[in-house]
Amino acid sequence: MAMGITVIGERGRMGSRVVALATGEFFVTDWENADVAIDFSSPKALDEHLSRAISSKKPLVIGTTGHATDAYSAMQAASQKIPILFSPNFSLGMAACLEAVALLAQKLGGTIDIVEAHHAQKKDKPSGTALLLAQMAGNQVAIHSIRAGDIIGDHTVIFTCAGERIELKHQVISRDTFAQGALKAAKFLKTRPPGLYSLKDIYEKSSC
Amino acid sequence: MAMGITVIGERGRMGSRVVALATGEFFVTDWENADVAIDFSSPKALDEHLSRAISSKKPLVIGTTGHATDAYSAMQAASQKIPILFSPNFSLGMAACLEAVALLAQKLGGTIDIVEAHHAQKKDKPSGTALLLAQMAGNQVAIHSIRAGDIIGDHTVIFTCAGERIELKHQVISRDTFAQGALKAAKFLKTRPPGLYSLKDIYEKSSC
Amino acid sequence: MAMGITVIGERGRMGSRVVALATGEFFVTDWENADVAIDFSSPKALDEHLSRAISSKKPLVIGTTGHATDAYSAMQAASQKIPILFSPNFSLGMAACLEAVALLAQKLGGTIDIVEAHHAQKKDKPSGTALLLAQMAGNQVAIHSIRAGDIIGDHTVIFTCAGERIELKHQVISRDTFAQGALKAAKFLKTRPPGLYSLKDIYEKSSC
Amino acid sequence: MAMGITVIGERGRMGSRVVALATGEFFVTDWENADVAIDFSSPKALDEHLSRAISSKKPLVIGTTGHATDAYSAMQAASQKIPILFSPNFSLGMAACLEAVALLAQKLGGTIDIVEAHHAQKKDKPSGTALLLAQMAGNQVAIHSIRAGDIIGDHTVIFTCAGERIELKHQVISRDTFAQGALKAAKFLKTRPPGLYSLKDIYEKSSC
Repeated sequence: MAMGITVIGERGRMGSRVVALATGEFFVTDWENADVAIDFSSPKALDEHLSRAISSKKPLVIGTTGHATDAYSAMQAASQKIPILFSPNFSLGMAACLEAVALLAQKLGGTIDIVEAHHAQKKDKPSGTALLLAQMAGNQVAIHSIRAGDIIGDHTVIFTCAGERIELKHQVISRDTFAQGALKAAKFLKTRPPGLYSLKDIYEKSSC
Repeated sequence: MAMGITVIGERGRMGSRVVALATGEFFVTDWENADVAIDFSSPKALDEHLSRAISSKKPLVIGTTGHATDAYSAMQAASQKIPILFSPNFSLGMAACLEAVALLAQKLGGTIDIVEAHHAQKKDKPSGTALLLAQMAGNQVAIHSIRAGDIIGDHTVIFTCAGERIELKHQVISRDTFAQGALKAAKFLKTRPPGLYSLKDIYEKSSC
Repeated sequence: MAMGITVIGERGRMGSRVVALATGEFFVTDWENADVAIDFSSPKALDEHLSRAISSKKPLVIGTTGHATDAYSAMQAASQKIPILFSPNFSLGMAACLEAVALLAQKLGGTIDIVEAHHAQKKDKPSGTALLLAQMAGNQVAIHSIRAGDIIGDHTVIFTCAGERIELKHQVISRDTFAQGALKAAKFLKTRPPGLYSLKDIYEKSSC
Repeated sequence: MAMGITVIGERGRMGSRVVALATGEFFVTDWENADVAIDFSSPKALDEHLSRAISSKKPLVIGTTGHATDAYSAMQAASQKIPILFSPNFSLGMAACLEAVALLAQKLGGTIDIVEAHHAQKKDKPSGTALLLAQMAGNQVAIHSIRAGDIIGDHTVIFTCAGERIELKHQVISRDTFAQGALKAAKFLKTRPPGLYSLKDIYEKSSC
């Protein structure tokens, strides 16, 4: 049986792609009839969406970034009552990169830089994904943000050691990669108990 | 107390750097007085060096590449009697990359390509390190070899998935990175029982 | 007044995008009523398309690659009678890169390598664009071809000099970049006298 | 006959390599007996060095960066009396890249970013070379500076257009590349009339 999703921010860059790809085992419906809500609207309306999801007991996938500093606490509080999956990025490749960065940072130490590039209209800087990569890498990370043209999302983590250098680059070619990941997140969340989930949970047994 | 090393191929690209850096806790001596032998000569003389190391009970670090297909078996046989550490690469960064490649390959699946670049005089193709990376990544890997100028050693592993791409690039800037790793390997091997060791063993607790 | 185009290979990867984008000043029609024909079909049918274009006095844009060795002579012969524009690539960026490669090759000399990456279904290898880049760079160029996933078209030209390295990388993110270039080529060709034109001619005064 | 050079900042990163490579047709001597002076000291002492060079009629190669805003005017004034060659970079590859960037920027328009990476001790930010690249590219350039480990000098110029991207990357592997260029500059300057020269003048007929 197909599952119903509702997309908040359904006319935006990401939301419109989620709607377009919600076929087959998914269908788009209104909030009331949705099994799961997916938020790709504005980070400013986070509290409103959390409240609504709690009052209607609706699992919530959050893909917005550039939140206020207390947003994560608000998500944690809400996740006592409903299942929430928050991720600044929904790609399998980034899920794997986050783990690889943790591994490399632990083995290598040294200086770490992140260069991230996104389209000129992106509002937050650095990107939520870059912040997550920095968190996986440890504290001493400088982030460099490029905002240009229609770039969907590139992240390069640079490890500089004496006499050698390592770069791990992740590049998204199509926004559909994110949209499909968000649908996968919705499917994952539908049957979960309350709790705060992350990108890692979506891809536990996947491969591209 | 300083440890004595003897370098086979001491006038070559790598051997000469090992000799130059063997100061402080190391000193260069002849075969008879060496605690450990380091081989950066030719892959063709492998059997000869293995025999000599066995008959004189000398731990042997092997850094040559481009061996005949039965070389690994010969090393395994010899390692019943003496400690041997074989690696086509002695850098900490590559040790970390090998693990990251295994992790990424397991998570991502899909198509994997390796592009490796070395100086124009390098005799073997693909590089021993590229073969090792391919082994860590699984079977379906195409290797592309660039031979140009004075490039010391670049390896890029490219994971291509639908709508996204990941590249892990390792670049060596100075041959001393390898030479120091080979000395570290010698130090490691000095106190080990017979057995066949690898790059992983050298760097178990290191960071750059 | 809008101009009519007919697309040979209109259901293929490229042809279908040309058809989709042929709006506004363009409309898609049959061969007879078309102002210009655009060929994104198979290189094998080149002679047939050339003959048909000559007999109907139709300007022809050729975007196929992987031709037989005498294809260029056939195009030259045909271009005595009709305007023909042949290019293995229709992007503005590649037009600029071809000039930059000629400049860099002239200044730098040394070893030149090209790494090109395209989707797994691409039939010719190396790509037509890589061959064109090699031609701009001079004779001593090694080309390395990656065929993986859904890569649209990457080309990296690597200049290796003593102690320094230069890489010029061109990456296409959307096949529409090519499709729009092909339409631009059709528009250019409509008013031209017989002759054999190339990518350079399309973009003489453009900028992205 | 060998030419005498004096190096200001002869114990620094760059100065020491110039001294080491000043053999064959060059010899290192004191200021009085030098044919040409090469300055790799501090940008703060520029006026002092210019005055001294004028009063002793000594051609001056300036390789320092991070100058005060009126430094270029001071060099121009001094160059009325003595030949001066100022460049933030002395590599052939960068000379070629500067021309390629001008060409690409003119053809492509669009958004341009520069990412430059240098060793952690470098005092100025952005690098003098990045500023020069930005000047060649036009006004709308964002520069991103990485300071890490022992990186000698990487510069990547990124052109972002709709649906395609171009990156031109220059990487210096050995500081001797710069040192040899500085010696080449000294040789060039020895026989020149007063005037302000640049990197372009050194490499007019070279190839690597």
